[in-house]
Amino acid sequence: MNTKGRVTIPTDMDAVPETLDLLKRWGADAIRDCDGTEFPQELKDTGAKIYATYYTTRKDNAWAKANPDETQQCYIMTPFYTAEDGALTIPLMTGISRELMKVNDHDDIARWWEVIDRTTGEPVPTADWHYDAASESVAIDAPAAYHEYTVSFLAYLIWDPVHMYNSVINDWKDVEHQIPFDVRQPKTHAYTMRRLREYLESHPYVNVVRFTTFFHLFTLVFDELRREKYVDWYGYSASVSPYILEQFEKEVGYKFRPEFIIDQGYYNNQYRVPSKEYKDFQAFQRREVAGLMKEMTDIVHAYGKEAMMFLGDHWIGCEPFMPEFQKSGVDAIVGSVGNGSTLRLISDIPGVKYTEGRFLPYFFPDTFHEGGDPVREAKENWVTARRAILRKPIDRIGYGGYLKLACEFPEFLDYVESVCNEFRELYENIKGTTPYCVKTVAVLNSWGQQRAWGCHMVHHALYQKQNYSYAGVIEALSGAPFDVKFISFDDIKADPKVLDGIDVLINVGDGDTAHTGGKVWEDPDVSATVKGFVHRGGGLIGVGEPGGHQYQGRYLQLAAPLGVEKETGFTLNYDKYNWDEHRDHFILADCPDHDVDFGEGKKSIFALEGTEILIQRDKEVQMAAHEYGQGRGVYISGLPYSFVNNRVLYRAILWAAHDEADLHKWFSTNYNVEVHAYVKNGKYCVVNNTYEPQDTTVYTGDGSSFDLHLDANEIKWYSIEG
Amino acid sequence: MNTKGRVTIPTDMDAVPETLDLLKRWGADAIRDCDGTEFPQELKDTGAKIYATYYTTRKDNAWAKANPDETQQCYIMTPFYTAEDGALTIPLMTGISRELMKVNDHDDIARWWEVIDRTTGEPVPTADWHYDAASESVAIDAPAAYHEYTVSFLAYLIWDPVHMYNSVINDWKDVEHQIPFDVRQPKTHAYTMRRLREYLESHPYVNVVRFTTFFHLFTLVFDELRREKYVDWYGYSASVSPYILEQFEKEVGYKFRPEFIIDQGYYNNQYRVPSKEYKDFQAFQRREVAGLMKEMTDIVHAYGKEAMMFLGDHWIGCEPFMPEFQKSGVDAIVGSVGNGSTLRLISDIPGVKYTEGRFLPYFFPDTFHEGGDPVREAKENWVTARRAILRKPIDRIGYGGYLKLACEFPEFLDYVESVCNEFRELYENIKGTTPYCVKTVAVLNSWGQQRAWGCHMVHHALYQKQNYSYAGVIEALSGAPFDVKFISFDDIKADPKVLDGIDVLINVGDGDTAHTGGKVWEDPDVSATVKGFVHRGGGLIGVGEPGGHQYQGRYLQLAAPLGVEKETGFTLNYDKYNWDEHRDHFILADCPDHDVDFGEGKKSIFALEGTEILIQRDKEVQMAAHEYGQGRGVYISGLPYSFVNNRVLYRAILWAAHDEADLHKWFSTNYNVEVHAYVKNGKYCVVNNTYEPQDTTVYTGDGSSFDLHLDANEIKWYSIEG
Repeated sequence: MNTKGRVTIPTDMDAVPETLDLLKRWGADAIRDCDGTEFPQELKDTGAKIYATYYTTRKDNAWAKANPDETQQCYIMTPFYTAEDGALTIPLMTGISRELMKVNDHDDIARWWEVIDRTTGEPVPTADWHYDAASESVAIDAPAAYHEYTVSFLAYLIWDPVHMYNSVINDWKDVEHQIPFDVRQPKTHAYTMRRLREYLESHPYVNVVRFTTFFHLFTLVFDELRREKYVDWYGYSASVSPYILEQFEKEVGYKFRPEFIIDQGYYNNQYRVPSKEYKDFQAFQRREVAGLMKEMTDIVHAYGKEAMMFLGDHWIGCEPFMPEFQKSGVDAIVGSVGNGSTLRLISDIPGVKYTEGRFLPYFFPDTFHEGGDPVREAKENWVTARRAILRKPIDRIGYGGYLKLACEFPEFLDYVESVCNEFRELYENIKGTTPYCVKTVAVLNSWGQQRAWGCHMVHHALYQKQNYSYAGVIEALSGAPFDVKFISFDDIKADPKVLDGIDVLINVGDGDTAHTGGKVWEDPDVSATVKGFVHRGGGLIGVGEPGGHQYQGRYLQLAAPLGVEKETGFTLNYDKYNWDEHRDHFILADCPDHDVDFGEGKKSIFALEGTEILIQRDKEVQMAAHEYGQGRGVYISGLPYSFVNNRVLYRAILWAAHDEADLHKWFSTNYNVEVHAYVKNGKYCVVNNTYEPQDTTVYTGDGSSFDLHLDANEIKWYSIEG
Repeated sequence: MNTKGRVTIPTDMDAVPETLDLLKRWGADAIRDCDGTEFPQELKDTGAKIYATYYTTRKDNAWAKANPDETQQCYIMTPFYTAEDGALTIPLMTGISRELMKVNDHDDIARWWEVIDRTTGEPVPTADWHYDAASESVAIDAPAAYHEYTVSFLAYLIWDPVHMYNSVINDWKDVEHQIPFDVRQPKTHAYTMRRLREYLESHPYVNVVRFTTFFHLFTLVFDELRREKYVDWYGYSASVSPYILEQFEKEVGYKFRPEFIIDQGYYNNQYRVPSKEYKDFQAFQRREVAGLMKEMTDIVHAYGKEAMMFLGDHWIGCEPFMPEFQKSGVDAIVGSVGNGSTLRLISDIPGVKYTEGRFLPYFFPDTFHEGGDPVREAKENWVTARRAILRKPIDRIGYGGYLKLACEFPEFLDYVESVCNEFRELYENIKGTTPYCVKTVAVLNSWGQQRAWGCHMVHHALYQKQNYSYAGVIEALSGAPFDVKFISFDDIKADPKVLDGIDVLINVGDGDTAHTGGKVWEDPDVSATVKGFVHRGGGLIGVGEPGGHQYQGRYLQLAAPLGVEKETGFTLNYDKYNWDEHRDHFILADCPDHDVDFGEGKKSIFALEGTEILIQRDKEVQMAAHEYGQGRGVYISGLPYSFVNNRVLYRAILWAAHDEADLHKWFSTNYNVEVHAYVKNGKYCVVNNTYEPQDTTVYTGDGSSFDLHLDANEIKWYSIEG
């Protein structure tokens, strides 16, 4: 077994001996500096690659203060204010941290701000309102009584939000607030390239420049109490400035409106069906950002170093699943791994030389304190991520934080050593091949490839009561033996052939969101293409309110293929006689008591005639199966991630694809255990995803089987006999 | 005490002695014939008024068969059919009882039918489809592949649906199917007036002609298995014919489309925000029907008799809360009483000489069989209805069915005797006065006065899982000490002064339904008027998804006054810190454990800043209170009817109206007991709504109080000392 390589560890000035020790024990071949630390000479001589974190937009307050007009900016919408009979005054900064932002009244307010009557939806003419700088308020002299108004304005970010977050969370005292500057603007652009060259010249020992990330932070706003107020890991609203927006106007040929970014206060978040203008803006940003990234990576390459991109923080415009990224010159990606979905958010990125996953727990005091249990956290993280690694491996793993903290926990050091060895073994076994895929499935939503694996993430992998029942589907897929694609309605509209070769389409989410499509279903091309796909023999799985959008006699626009509809009251006059359950269905065969945890589930779903209800509760259908033409549809009200739900989805996909007969291939009868085959490499493994021992019967590719006992978390490798 | 009068009993040929006995025991002063029975001479001589049931549209198959072109008709939409690559054939009668209907291919199909591509929403040109009478199918030669199609067609009703219902339910054998004829059409119109005159001449002993009802049955469709398929007690889709629709076109001046009635298959039901065309059609029908009613009531009056209208069956177009009804010449209304709401559906009808409630149980074998407990049913019915009678009395009560059956249950006869006496006593005490109203409240929806008290009824008072949590509010109001109005958005739009004098507005229901208004909130006049009403000091209670309609940054368009919003995913990026409960709030003071049964409740409601959450469950707000300008808003997720919820609503109204100080006026501390005052008559009563004894403290109008014990169901009357 290869006992060295593919592992990165952090270091510190005060942890040199420990670093040297762990480099050996863990077989690490790369060392990264910690934010704010210098790099010790002894470690420069180890032969390990050295990563250095580099910030393009901050950690240079001298420049930032000298060029306040090139401070980064964002769009902000005030809350709604109700007008009474007289004038209405709207304070701009109420609810927003004044440490974080200040109003930009330097640029032309009339051009870049918008006051909107939210009762009519119309902008208020600029002549009818004015800004009072002293009170930081907009006054509307003669508003319509009892209409509600908002102001959309530009604000300077006077404290980098990530730096603010770190300062607040770690309770840093007397830290100078790092002011983010806008590399897109001419002066800062020129300066930044000089600054990068100077950095590279002064850090000859660095092999890998880890960009954190490039230019624009995702949307992150704090309130007056320094509490997080708004966060969108995918948000573009802090990637704006008049300089950028004028370029955008020229490129697209129509006039920019703040509302393109403000989006009624929803800031074009994940759930919003993206407008044409927002899609145009994102595409523009991706092109511009990729160009500027290329300038930087060219410089890095000129110094003989690699450019690594951290997937997070200032990554807006860098979206790595989009084609523009391929022109950025980035060599490698590193990112934080919270679960299977976030693993594949990294490992599936095309076109880079290697990918690296930063595992949990970070060596921070929140875990590494007396009484903490870092081994438990590490096990959970590793076993969760391993499912996804077995489908599409990252090339390297790594840890972050303060190494000295970890050294206080010898059991943790042992466990990580075993993880490093296990990772190297599995990487060796599966490298260069595509694991056996039982079926090809495609998740269909408004985002497609752009939000591959992240399509239900609000703040990276954080839990949300309203989305865990949907994110569970993506998490299950991240480690399942399927070829998983993410396609958008635009893709279907552009070329229906995008569905060729797909066995099962999946539409997951609430009605009238980007996840299920909303108004797109009024487009006959989209609607007929999807229905035709199923009718001619394809599979369809709908979770939540698939195709949910009230139009032409239906709420669920996928009602015909799925055989279910939502009772909105509009069909309450219709008698409903189809309530019998069919718990003996193929899909439920492995579920204890033939029952399922649907998470938040859905209310008021009923089955059309001819549909087989698998599970209903109190006359609300939770799961149903339906034949539509030559194809099949499966409805599920919600599917939070669990091992048994992972099996439910597996069986649902096989059933939808008419492939029940192939169930017993590369299969474990115990749903806590999974089997992955790498036919080209002649290997397969059986993996226990739980923290307890498991017994199962394993079926190989030819349908033969054997019984197996696995220890907790165990992975066993076998050769395929050929 | 008056021991005679205000009571109607049924009779039969075989129950003459029993009738005479009960006339005396119950103090009845009116006798009604049973459907299909002759009237015995002995009863003609009692001095009691005699009611005779009269059917204008059926029970004359000779005429019906001789005039098949004037058989009644209805519009029907087929289910959705998906086209494949070739032609598409849509059978019209699949899923519909052939005993009930047959396709009308007599009239011009091209003019009166519509084939609609539901994928585009566009009608298919008539040249592109044809009807094949042999197979009763429409064929579309070249449909768009994988589009869904429906056919809207006219059908003759060849069996009166109520007659069919009675036949099926009672398992009548060898009954000739009564064919309904259309009194609106010329031949039948003329014949009907002759027929009525002949009837009156041959029935000189009849005092009251009870019309069942007039011309058009509410929508009621059965399937091939004789099961109810679709029912809408308010539905107009069986009130059509080319003759009628041509008149309609002339009156409104625009072309009729079947879609006005078909409404995507929703048939303009209760939940649908009514379109302009549907409102026009209803108004047209009301005018035409009232005119024809007047012809009939004039004839009845000419024979010295009274015209009574049964509120139900063929009552479409007769809507008694609308102004056209006032011109119909109807003397009296009778209707079935299922609960408080249905009682007031009768007793609140303006402009008639008297109203009569038919109480449950009907003397039918389903209750009056060995082991049946009619006393229990009668008690429940009486106590439920009595709350509403005490607010707005009907003038008479009565019973229906087969008298002989009731006579087998002596305890039942005793109980009804006590009810009759109790009714006469309370009627005497409260007649001619308006009970003391603590506040004026208005239920605001798309229907207003037209659906007063019936605004959450699908099939009269029958339970629906999706509406009991909302209907409970109306039921609570039916017996509460408030002046209750029902106003529509059209009323507000026509004249905002309609809100003058109202203390509290109530908006109840699911989003995007007629109950909450849907797109009407995009009308600034409506939105600003309602918000202005609250902001200037009015009260607002929102139940379910008040003002629910996605528009301009809000799902709940009443979010500003109510202080709550629904999480649709669009605001998941906003951090929410307001979760503290205030269970010590005035509104919850009488609730056991300060908790409430919200019925189906609502998911994903959250509170805005500054809102007081009263109850949240698992971070979903169920009840909240909010100050808005000078006014107050209360949010409740659902409120099924119960005595405690009745109290919750009472307190919510007082709080919303800033009138907590007046709580202890005409008030019972025990929520199972209510107090009603009739100041003009110098009376008040205390009523125990439960089937157990209750103890309470009673507060009178001056705030003085006394303790009281009440027996089960007891009502106690007092004089107001002045």
